[in-house]
Amino acid sequence: MTVRLTPDHICTMLARLRETGPLVQCLTNTVVTNFTANVLLALGAAPAMADVPTEAGQFARIASGVLINVGTPHAEQRVAMVEAASAAQEAGTPWVLDPVAVGVLPVRTALASELLSYAPTAIRGNASEVIALAGLGAGGRGVDAIDSPESALAAAGRLASVHGSVVAVSGAVDLITDGIDVIRIGNGHPYLTLVTGGGCALGAVTAAFLAVDGDRMAATAAATAVYTVAAEIAAAGACGPGSFAFAFLDALGSVDAEIIRSRVAIS
Amino acid sequence: MTVRLTPDHICTMLARLRETGPLVQCLTNTVVTNFTANVLLALGAAPAMADVPTEAGQFARIASGVLINVGTPHAEQRVAMVEAASAAQEAGTPWVLDPVAVGVLPVRTALASELLSYAPTAIRGNASEVIALAGLGAGGRGVDAIDSPESALAAAGRLASVHGSVVAVSGAVDLITDGIDVIRIGNGHPYLTLVTGGGCALGAVTAAFLAVDGDRMAATAAATAVYTVAAEIAAAGACGPGSFAFAFLDALGSVDAEIIRSRVAIS
Amino acid sequence: MTVRLTPDHICTMLARLRETGPLVQCLTNTVVTNFTANVLLALGAAPAMADVPTEAGQFARIASGVLINVGTPHAEQRVAMVEAASAAQEAGTPWVLDPVAVGVLPVRTALASELLSYAPTAIRGNASEVIALAGLGAGGRGVDAIDSPESALAAAGRLASVHGSVVAVSGAVDLITDGIDVIRIGNGHPYLTLVTGGGCALGAVTAAFLAVDGDRMAATAAATAVYTVAAEIAAAGACGPGSFAFAFLDALGSVDAEIIRSRVAIS
Repeated sequence: MTVRLTPDHICTMLARLRETGPLVQCLTNTVVTNFTANVLLALGAAPAMADVPTEAGQFARIASGVLINVGTPHAEQRVAMVEAASAAQEAGTPWVLDPVAVGVLPVRTALASELLSYAPTAIRGNASEVIALAGLGAGGRGVDAIDSPESALAAAGRLASVHGSVVAVSGAVDLITDGIDVIRIGNGHPYLTLVTGGGCALGAVTAAFLAVDGDRMAATAAATAVYTVAAEIAAAGACGPGSFAFAFLDALGSVDAEIIRSRVAIS
Repeated sequence: MTVRLTPDHICTMLARLRETGPLVQCLTNTVVTNFTANVLLALGAAPAMADVPTEAGQFARIASGVLINVGTPHAEQRVAMVEAASAAQEAGTPWVLDPVAVGVLPVRTALASELLSYAPTAIRGNASEVIALAGLGAGGRGVDAIDSPESALAAAGRLASVHGSVVAVSGAVDLITDGIDVIRIGNGHPYLTLVTGGGCALGAVTAAFLAVDGDRMAATAAATAVYTVAAEIAAAGACGPGSFAFAFLDALGSVDAEIIRSRVAIS
Repeated sequence: MTVRLTPDHICTMLARLRETGPLVQCLTNTVVTNFTANVLLALGAAPAMADVPTEAGQFARIASGVLINVGTPHAEQRVAMVEAASAAQEAGTPWVLDPVAVGVLPVRTALASELLSYAPTAIRGNASEVIALAGLGAGGRGVDAIDSPESALAAAGRLASVHGSVVAVSGAVDLITDGIDVIRIGNGHPYLTLVTGGGCALGAVTAAFLAVDGDRMAATAAATAVYTVAAEIAAAGACGPGSFAFAFLDALGSVDAEIIRSRVAIS
């Protein structure tokens, strides 16, 4: 098992992201659109929430990366999601699937299953979602994981192998796997679970990193690393989830190579 | 008239809420989804915004509590709301109706009327909304009340009696009634009216408290008490509505038995 | 070319806005509903996001001002937008069109074109959007302008003349024109571009100012002036886009005549 990610590589990707400002199309749930867009802006990417049928597919061809998050899958958005996934695959735009609450609820479970056929570049979820998406479990409790990332390793590996995707499992220690190698990132803070969209926005950040580096495994892991290191910085000065949320946006803007090198915990 | 709520009872409910993390399904308006989810997370509950037809009814059977807020009642969500209310009633899941701007606007007025037939456990609104929902007035000005809570007491009592609901009327002094007793909570701060969703999120918090205590009158009043005491704490250090909003989330996380006992104003 | 706006006139309009609390109906995109409502509340206006067909038209007749922003133009909202624009025109309610990403994407481009036929009181966009809406260019990159306000002056003038609208072009120096006169406002801060809805919420604020002063050119320019002066105040103490966002809401609440007189840069 080779660790394929160095702190220097993360810093190079982050610098490229800030220089190029990748255009990240997000088709995401109604709860987190605002936070997701602000996370991308703070980091240096350019969000665009084009999720209307006809526009969604067209935009996926010109976007730098696409996020599809099935958290509130209204009928019109479902059409747009399939359109965007299909166009992204055709155009070679990297795209990320976030299978929110899959397994528990039928509409999104069917939708996520259909979306898998368009070979997501990366899949990001919590352990219960990844296990359910791989057909190995019934899902968590709403959006909460009831399993640990390590317990989802086999499921993540299977998903990765079958669909040719990198799979990122969020938790106290995040797992990223392509079905062969595994990278673990030990950064982060529990406050991230007390801000709605703490996980969802990472999917968008992953799409932004995939847009700036063709090494999908490294890019997916780098997204998690930068995101969770910023969370640590923000948590240091926070008095609760409210002050954490705004400090996190500030930290995404200010996190730099020195901080990343001194903090990132890759294994 | 017996006051049926003690500070100790409030503290017991809050402790139980934080221990059990009730799963609160929210079918709410597009303006406040994010804030509502963050309020629930900060308090210790688990939000889930499942508002798609088919999923909505299924989720209402497993949720600990449900909020239905008719603030932006799009067609697909209206279907999901009726489904969720019906499933909640059948499954015995406590549910809260927030009749935003009822009386003023026809689509939501008809919808709220239909939802009433599923016997909401609690109804939370401002005075003008409660008066309009009871069929005794024309509603306020958009989402703003033009009446005081006391002027809505008769309407609240009638709604409570006819539908078997506890009715909470928000205002400077909040009223909670089951048609027999009345509890008044004198806490709060005007900043709550300068943050969008200040009232809407209380509906979700009410659903969370109803999930942890079968005394519906006490649970509804406790939700208002904890919420408005937290607002006082947050307002003390705020420089405006922006800093209040994040301090309020922090306060919902840190408010404890000592603060509640020293501040809560029940009559 | 006569400058038709004085600092005193801006202060008079702001005072009137705070006294009367104009009811601003917003039909806007899902990303910025929350921020837009909070911006209006902080400033002293009353937001109402009535965007369901049947209700939308009815509400536009009683609202003080209407914003129509085509950022995420779902089918049901498109119907509501046409209804609201038509009702606003008929009832004489001032209304603002924000043509987000027009030119790039087909559904909103057709919609904005249709909406223009209801003679918006004001049009607010970035340079690329204004050029595209005038039929003189292909639009920007998603929601980002690739042109400067000055380069959009001819397009803005043409739009203003053809549709009888005041056109506001946002950028480092904002341009406001009715096709004859031009007002430039040199205030603002780059942080506004790092908070999603930084431009969109200005459209809502413009509707609020149009509600309190019949001089459409002055009201549109005053909205920009107050908004961008508040941004300067907020930026002075901010550590990044997260802390800026909440400080901006505070500043909208506290900005006063003295601050405006000392800072506003009209030319």
